[in-house]
Amino acid sequence: MIVKDMETISISRCFGGTQGIYAHASAETRTRMRFSVFVPPQAEQGPVPVVWFLSGLTCTEENFTVKAGAQRMAAALGLMLVAPDTSPRGVDDGGETVPDDPEGAWDFGLGAGFYVDATEAPWARNYRMFSYISDELPQLIAGAFPADMNAQGIMGHSMGGHGALTIALRHPGRFRSVSAFAPIVSPLNCPWGEKALGGYLGPDRSRWRAHDAVALIEDGARCPHILVDQGMADGFVASQLKPDLLEAACNAAGQPLTLNRRDGYDHSYYFIASFMEDHLRWHAAALRD
Amino acid sequence: MIVKDMETISISRCFGGTQGIYAHASAETRTRMRFSVFVPPQAEQGPVPVVWFLSGLTCTEENFTVKAGAQRMAAALGLMLVAPDTSPRGVDDGGETVPDDPEGAWDFGLGAGFYVDATEAPWARNYRMFSYISDELPQLIAGAFPADMNAQGIMGHSMGGHGALTIALRHPGRFRSVSAFAPIVSPLNCPWGEKALGGYLGPDRSRWRAHDAVALIEDGARCPHILVDQGMADGFVASQLKPDLLEAACNAAGQPLTLNRRDGYDHSYYFIASFMEDHLRWHAAALRD
Repeated sequence: MIVKDMETISISRCFGGTQGIYAHASAETRTRMRFSVFVPPQAEQGPVPVVWFLSGLTCTEENFTVKAGAQRMAAALGLMLVAPDTSPRGVDDGGETVPDDPEGAWDFGLGAGFYVDATEAPWARNYRMFSYISDELPQLIAGAFPADMNAQGIMGHSMGGHGALTIALRHPGRFRSVSAFAPIVSPLNCPWGEKALGGYLGPDRSRWRAHDAVALIEDGARCPHILVDQGMADGFVASQLKPDLLEAACNAAGQPLTLNRRDGYDHSYYFIASFMEDHLRWHAAALRD
Repeated sequence: MIVKDMETISISRCFGGTQGIYAHASAETRTRMRFSVFVPPQAEQGPVPVVWFLSGLTCTEENFTVKAGAQRMAAALGLMLVAPDTSPRGVDDGGETVPDDPEGAWDFGLGAGFYVDATEAPWARNYRMFSYISDELPQLIAGAFPADMNAQGIMGHSMGGHGALTIALRHPGRFRSVSAFAPIVSPLNCPWGEKALGGYLGPDRSRWRAHDAVALIEDGARCPHILVDQGMADGFVASQLKPDLLEAACNAAGQPLTLNRRDGYDHSYYFIASFMEDHLRWHAAALRD
């Protein structure tokens, strides 16, 4: 299949499948966006289920791809893996440089799109990661790769765990499996979230609820049984991540949640890699039903 | 145990063990050297076998540590993994900056120590990676980590495959298992090797033979059964790596070798990760004997 203006940056055989990095011109962000796709060997026989991985603050499409060790189990289970970038970057199609945090902080702007469509200047022109991940990139994946779009799962880490949970809750019926590593569960209730949603969406906190997993569940949204792993030596757990808030909201609302608190594990990809097999098996079990 | 001037740069729980990055003052290189150690959970019960991984051109201790996906099987098999840096770096204990390739090339100087003790100026002052890997770092590991130094294996990639093979051949009886991914098998017979050994050891090619796996085997050195995996879509296979030379030398000398030619695989860590489990099982089988 032909996708307009998609470019292969690199492609390597990996566990019998192929690991590629691609770029395309995004209409949503008005920039060239990169993304990573692992195609498992089973795709030679026909379309395969797709698991999305949304990354955390400071990441590109590369971090998950090289550090998570996910391709081995994805190859064994026959899962395609798609990992997008976390923000627009560079110069856009109108010649404007994508704006960044005015002080160059790593928790806002480049590498920190927070999976929302910004409404505030100057962010609204390019920072449209919610629509990019929800609509534009899935259409591209469906057109250019052997993906069974009726069998999709989504997962993510930290800011990307927030993205996975909120995008799943906002698209009922689309994802058959949902999981997260050390997710930001409630941007309304943490400094990272307050800075990001305040900046991208403005000061009216009622508009933030559509991008807050806890608020979405409180407001009636539901998604498939959520699997969360949280390292208890993660320095951000008490100040930013607050898994207890998700647990309370799920308990109150009857949203199924399995929350594993992992003693001694931190916020790094060493933690993610340690439990990646569990998460991919979780997705595969739901996607095979 | 206390090791003088060793510093923990980072430590993370990983697959039930610990992945650390450490630094120490090296007497051999006169610089602070970093290295990576994965300690498997079995080390809580006593010393465990050690597998060394020597990295390729441009790498530090980090590449293997984050990209190879080795900790999972090392944890399952009870193996410690040690990954050193590939050259001295920075300013040394006499205030001299470690010299680099005069043109800044990536195949000589920083990140390209080639696992030799340089004899030529200005390299001889710091570029002592053969003695560093053979003597100084093993003493540090034996003193500071729960390592069974009577059960050591060694492996490496590309330039580090050259390092693993030559260091194993130069220390008969020390290593009970040897393997390599896409090794440079004969620096005497490839441009990378001619540049490196010519630079570090000078123009007398007879002195290079002690750092050339094929020449060492021809000259009578032996090591345990060697496992090599080589991707056949590796762009360096014909020009630099030349596995056929190793195969011919082993066949002629009766040195046991298993050489797996892997169709479609390139020179990247995606290739290494794909066959890491095979290599770690190979080492574990020999180290358990």
